[in-house]
Amino acid sequence: MLIQRLAIIGVGLLGGSLARALKRANQCGEVVGCGRNTANLEEAMRMGIIDRYTTHIKESVKESDMVIVAVPLGTMATAFEQMADFLSPSAVITDVGSAKGSVVTAARARLGAHFPRFVPAHPLAGGEKTGAAASTADLFENRRVILTPVTDTDPAACRKVWEMWQFTGATVSEMKVEQHDLTLAATSHLPHLLAFTLVDMLAAMEQENKQSIFPFAATGFRDFSRIASSDPIMWRDICLTNRAAVLEMAQQFITHLTQLMKAVDEQDGKAIEDLFRRAKTTRDQFYL
Amino acid sequence: MLIQRLAIIGVGLLGGSLARALKRANQCGEVVGCGRNTANLEEAMRMGIIDRYTTHIKESVKESDMVIVAVPLGTMATAFEQMADFLSPSAVITDVGSAKGSVVTAARARLGAHFPRFVPAHPLAGGEKTGAAASTADLFENRRVILTPVTDTDPAACRKVWEMWQFTGATVSEMKVEQHDLTLAATSHLPHLLAFTLVDMLAAMEQENKQSIFPFAATGFRDFSRIASSDPIMWRDICLTNRAAVLEMAQQFITHLTQLMKAVDEQDGKAIEDLFRRAKTTRDQFYL
Repeated sequence: MLIQRLAIIGVGLLGGSLARALKRANQCGEVVGCGRNTANLEEAMRMGIIDRYTTHIKESVKESDMVIVAVPLGTMATAFEQMADFLSPSAVITDVGSAKGSVVTAARARLGAHFPRFVPAHPLAGGEKTGAAASTADLFENRRVILTPVTDTDPAACRKVWEMWQFTGATVSEMKVEQHDLTLAATSHLPHLLAFTLVDMLAAMEQENKQSIFPFAATGFRDFSRIASSDPIMWRDICLTNRAAVLEMAQQFITHLTQLMKAVDEQDGKAIEDLFRRAKTTRDQFYL
Repeated sequence: MLIQRLAIIGVGLLGGSLARALKRANQCGEVVGCGRNTANLEEAMRMGIIDRYTTHIKESVKESDMVIVAVPLGTMATAFEQMADFLSPSAVITDVGSAKGSVVTAARARLGAHFPRFVPAHPLAGGEKTGAAASTADLFENRRVILTPVTDTDPAACRKVWEMWQFTGATVSEMKVEQHDLTLAATSHLPHLLAFTLVDMLAAMEQENKQSIFPFAATGFRDFSRIASSDPIMWRDICLTNRAAVLEMAQQFITHLTQLMKAVDEQDGKAIEDLFRRAKTTRDQFYL
């Protein structure tokens, strides 16, 4: 058994699903849940996701050999601070945050001597529903998990987290913190910004012109704008914690869009078609 | 029976589906197909979509009381020109183009005395597959069709086209040309530009940095970028024919995105969250 006592700080979709996947794989003994919402924790107990719970981080991490920090990015630093003095000297700590630079900085500042046993991780999984009730044992199957260890990360701790994720059915890989944050800004954070911005702009147009717009949107818009239905708080936190990479990608995007607009303005059919064809070829390659 | 002889110029997904829907509703007699690709026309014959075909527009429109111009936006003007001298004096002419201003201009210039019987129309339907073989009788069921008649459009012609589309199961409505082009630029053309641009930008990043990006894209990206798999020629033509509206919407989008970037840069969590929440509320309202 890989883990004797597992502490899940934040028993939501990700934390709950990880606990269930590890229980299913018989890779953990006791699971201690920690959170502020006792109704959610009771539900997690009822569903057999956790074996007991506490609302105090310090209680949950005591004698736990694996600590999963699955709280929102905005409260990550506080969680590290509250656990630092109570961690077992051999405990491995890891997280599930969508941005890694800010988490590493917070962990380094708050975990003190425990920092080398902190393994930054990001499972590329999620969903529209939240809370323990939405968790499933197979959420991570065939999904990717990216670990972003730094120079002083203990290789044994890294190995343990790698193994843990493999037991969930995920494909694990490693990246540098900066590469992770830029890659995710490009493939996930920027698309969310674009979708949120477009929907908000169209809503403003409807109000200003008093003419309906959304009823005339075709099916393509429905798919394109799906991510604009994501959680505002979570995405606000992602923007704030991955600020530099998000801004860099958004600026690059404006440069590219401006180039395309220039081609449209100059009626340069070839340049427009070439760009569209390259994009289509790229996308068809990855999703067919 | 609404239509005695129907001419379909361009027996593709839209033209073929319209012919099938009208046949199913017993609302048309003979269907004459016209196109350049005889293999496609033979297939349409074999499938019973059309009753006969010709590769000459002038042949197809003779004695037809309804003429559907379902050719790409880029060849619309040529089609009007080739039919003008051969149209029956009572024939109603309509199209299926995604942009209307340019089509109206072309029709006015080329159809001469027949122009009042031209009813600009845009069915909001389509799909990734093309050609007669992809057509279905139910493509337009519960979809919207927008008619954009102008001051000199004959009300009787407009009524006939309205009725025709109702027989396909579509919901028909009317808009001014300019409102149509701006609405479609906002809900369809701009999102396509954004998706094409993002995918092309990421492909360029992969090449420059020699690091894979797309394998780390989550499911949200798949939906967001689906429209980047659209037909490059068709979308080039849409950009070129709806140029002014597309550029206006793209410019507005850059203004809105720049405002959001400013909020991110200034770490104005409230402004970011407010925008995301407005967008989520708007989208959830239309798709739940």
